[in-house]
Amino acid sequence: MQQITSRKNPQLQHLKKLGTDRAYREITGVFLCDGLKLYEEARQAGMEIPLLATSYQELATDATCPVVLVPEDVLHSISPLKNPQPLLFACIMPDNTPIATPKQALILDGIQDPGNMGTLLRSATAFGIEQVILVGDCVDIYNPKTVRAAMGALFRQRVCMMTIEELVEYTNQNGLTLLGAALKEDAKAIGGPLPERVAIAIGNEGQGLSTALLSQCHGTIKIPMEAYTESLNAGVAGSILLWELYRNREGTIHG
Amino acid sequence: MQQITSRKNPQLQHLKKLGTDRAYREITGVFLCDGLKLYEEARQAGMEIPLLATSYQELATDATCPVVLVPEDVLHSISPLKNPQPLLFACIMPDNTPIATPKQALILDGIQDPGNMGTLLRSATAFGIEQVILVGDCVDIYNPKTVRAAMGALFRQRVCMMTIEELVEYTNQNGLTLLGAALKEDAKAIGGPLPERVAIAIGNEGQGLSTALLSQCHGTIKIPMEAYTESLNAGVAGSILLWELYRNREGTIHG
Repeated sequence: MQQITSRKNPQLQHLKKLGTDRAYREITGVFLCDGLKLYEEARQAGMEIPLLATSYQELATDATCPVVLVPEDVLHSISPLKNPQPLLFACIMPDNTPIATPKQALILDGIQDPGNMGTLLRSATAFGIEQVILVGDCVDIYNPKTVRAAMGALFRQRVCMMTIEELVEYTNQNGLTLLGAALKEDAKAIGGPLPERVAIAIGNEGQGLSTALLSQCHGTIKIPMEAYTESLNAGVAGSILLWELYRNREGTIHG
Repeated sequence: MQQITSRKNPQLQHLKKLGTDRAYREITGVFLCDGLKLYEEARQAGMEIPLLATSYQELATDATCPVVLVPEDVLHSISPLKNPQPLLFACIMPDNTPIATPKQALILDGIQDPGNMGTLLRSATAFGIEQVILVGDCVDIYNPKTVRAAMGALFRQRVCMMTIEELVEYTNQNGLTLLGAALKEDAKAIGGPLPERVAIAIGNEGQGLSTALLSQCHGTIKIPMEAYTESLNAGVAGSILLWELYRNREGTIHG
């Protein structure tokens, strides 16, 4: 096992660049993850790990992937995150072509906050959403803050990007009813049955759904709430809609 | 209207200290808010604003509270937040004694992340929870990040602190069933009816509910999810439970 102490080592520079440079991630097809918990999740999910850098001696010895032993302060200096962990690893991006016949999909339209993006991916995985589709100007799902907030969802959740035209074609082909979450008077309050084959679209934190996407929706839905409240956090609102979908699926709830 | 350009001005130093010093907030009974949206919410909710500092000339002229006009770069230098707004104001803490006969309460046990705390307060307000009770070592609800994430909920939501003994007395006195959110095998999956008078307890992001609180619960509940998923974000999980409570209340859902 190789020991590295220089911050200028090319392998460490590679990890550092994966943490800060979206274009570099896209060119290399690799993203950066941190922490023991994510490492265990990645191994369980069978992810390919081309490089692990850690200060945990035992872990470095036992690892079955390429590994370098690095002092903790050096690891901290290459981590893009505020509370750096003594373990960083590169992970090969999973296959993100859209699946052929999804019954449920989550559409994210211009989600900008990396934490909200990670939270929504985590909730989508928890509630068994088969396909997540990004449209508009979304934050990179491989932003290190998103990776951390997603808590392993990126190893399991199918996520792809589409234009609105492609999305419309995809939902039509698969017989998915496209419902947009919108705080409009005439949006239908959730709480009743939802279509079995459905795509739910969540919009940007401040602006909501783009008019281009909204005009393609078969209907709009909203979460009923107290009169003086304007809205919920985007990650929360999306997660409640996904829970409602999960709750509606036959056989899911035994409570 | 007073114009201030010096960062060392005592009124600006007061605002700066409100943003960074919890003990100072507690002694003065005042907390710091930022942004036009929060300012409008605070006025709508009838909050007392002893000091407004802004670079918006028109707003400064029209304000009905004590106001100082401050250049934007000076405002940025006293803001505790990453994306500073050209408007800061001090707000007198609302009455936070527990209300007499709540039907629903949310118990937060050791919530540490300011964003999660704000999100939970925002959701509690949206879903009409009458009383929020903090136990254990929670982040300050007047932390500027919490204030921002709460999006005005702090102006409307009753929030108090209690020991576990006080909490048990309070729930007993009010006939509230105390249910703890726990990822245990034998926790009851939500989706069915919930008690009408209920207090739901959410635990710390990593550790969950403390054993001291868990031992006082009348029962435990969980959100059912896919097998390979471990958990949801604490703010999301709590919000889904509050939605489920809201959903169960008679007459709420017209969908």
